[in-house]
Amino acid sequence: MSATDWLVLLSLAGTAVFAINGALTAIQAARLDIVGVITLGTITALGGGVLRDVLLGIHPPEGLADWRFLVTALVASALVFMVHKPLARLVRWVTVFDAAGLSLFSITGTLTALHAGASPLLSIILGATTAVGGGTFRDLLTSRVPQILTSDLYAIPALLGAGGTWVFWALGWHHPLAYLAAGAACFGLRMVGVRYKLHAPRVQV
Amino acid sequence: MSATDWLVLLSLAGTAVFAINGALTAIQAARLDIVGVITLGTITALGGGVLRDVLLGIHPPEGLADWRFLVTALVASALVFMVHKPLARLVRWVTVFDAAGLSLFSITGTLTALHAGASPLLSIILGATTAVGGGTFRDLLTSRVPQILTSDLYAIPALLGAGGTWVFWALGWHHPLAYLAAGAACFGLRMVGVRYKLHAPRVQV
Amino acid sequence: MSATDWLVLLSLAGTAVFAINGALTAIQAARLDIVGVITLGTITALGGGVLRDVLLGIHPPEGLADWRFLVTALVASALVFMVHKPLARLVRWVTVFDAAGLSLFSITGTLTALHAGASPLLSIILGATTAVGGGTFRDLLTSRVPQILTSDLYAIPALLGAGGTWVFWALGWHHPLAYLAAGAACFGLRMVGVRYKLHAPRVQV
Repeated sequence: MSATDWLVLLSLAGTAVFAINGALTAIQAARLDIVGVITLGTITALGGGVLRDVLLGIHPPEGLADWRFLVTALVASALVFMVHKPLARLVRWVTVFDAAGLSLFSITGTLTALHAGASPLLSIILGATTAVGGGTFRDLLTSRVPQILTSDLYAIPALLGAGGTWVFWALGWHHPLAYLAAGAACFGLRMVGVRYKLHAPRVQV
Repeated sequence: MSATDWLVLLSLAGTAVFAINGALTAIQAARLDIVGVITLGTITALGGGVLRDVLLGIHPPEGLADWRFLVTALVASALVFMVHKPLARLVRWVTVFDAAGLSLFSITGTLTALHAGASPLLSIILGATTAVGGGTFRDLLTSRVPQILTSDLYAIPALLGAGGTWVFWALGWHHPLAYLAAGAACFGLRMVGVRYKLHAPRVQV
Repeated sequence: MSATDWLVLLSLAGTAVFAINGALTAIQAARLDIVGVITLGTITALGGGVLRDVLLGIHPPEGLADWRFLVTALVASALVFMVHKPLARLVRWVTVFDAAGLSLFSITGTLTALHAGASPLLSIILGATTAVGGGTFRDLLTSRVPQILTSDLYAIPALLGAGGTWVFWALGWHHPLAYLAAGAACFGLRMVGVRYKLHAPRVQV
């Protein structure tokens, strides 16, 4: 597979896990009907990449223009709605799916921005934006303060994944395994943070 | 009148009814001052089309670039503020104005996307987005979970209107009456849903 | 200094005061951790200009493409987090920082839109949008109904600043002092409104 094929594959995987996360959140938190579940799953899955592409001026955004992303998001969300009873245990795994999507999108978001000619600083910020964007739309649409603002160690892993991706890119290590290592660092830090309730420094009042 | 004239006329009508809906919502739900009423009316009226144009890469968005849309939205919202006492009975009609805007924008949004070269799938999704976008911004700005997620049969009529519009477009039936039939199906399904409290399948927990 | 230098300088000043405002709001209202404070400060500072540039089709938006804006926003937000105890008294000044940002961005937003070829009406609306946009994102992300809808005399001063800027631009008075006079009118009207609790006409129910 070419490097581009890998990038698309990682993006599709991120799309699927974020769609599952969004759809499970919808069922868990809001008990929405089938349209609400599919809409929230799809927006969670595609929102970060669409925001990145709008900011980069890529029209129409890849997540809407390439039917593979749209269909992956719609089908994954619909599947969660249909088979959610056997999936009931999966609700406990919402955080894991979210961390997986965070990691995959921090890689693909950063690479997309770099390919579009953005500076390293902007690429890292847009990579992290891709990773946290979908979940932020999900939280706004369900009237919750976004995880990006409140959750301990959520943006920092995304920035680590995006920064690591840039380092490998700048070094010329374009092998997918290098990028996956950056993603794994993001995933690991996020899950360690969740497990041990680590948090970033807070305001001392 | 040319086909384009009809398209503009339908868009202007959709703009007016959504502005009235947004302004009435502002008065009914939030008792805002004149600036708040006009702002919410205008964002409800123009938000869906602006979102569609940003995603399609049409700059500046038609709703902002063409003064007729901006003026229609501003004037309709201001009129609601000024004559809202005689209009008090209209508050009961908020749902009807919303359904009318939904129908008109599902037609014009789909046609705009098709004219811009979007695929059928994307055009139908962007047509429905145009229809539900303004109301979603309205709900987010007034701290409510958007109707698109919670309301029974809201997105489905919009998708029906958008899909019907695409069918007539693909068949080459470009007569405004064909498109208005698709919009009427959207309007009818929406109002039947409201009247009989129909709803899409929900999660069985 | 050239006219462009002045414009950048005013934009950077607006960026800094809005970042301080957003970061103080975060600490005051939500007690966020360091990432939350910096994120909210940065979005408050850059959000209005990014929205304007997305609507105008400027890619990537100036606030993201020009490292000076990004660094100003990040550093000002981080400083508020680090030295907020000595700054505790500053919390009382949140409104003043907000009014200063409102004034500066109503000038620079209007001029940016005019330079991009927008019509006078659109330029004034986008100037006011630049001014109120960042604060609106700040309020949405912290689950509050945006100030633009509820706060007395908030949008009107922004429109005054934007309108005044357009008048001087149309007259050919491109001296920074002329524009600053428009900004001062915005700032003055906003602070008078806050001080005397002036408000726009409300709905009589």
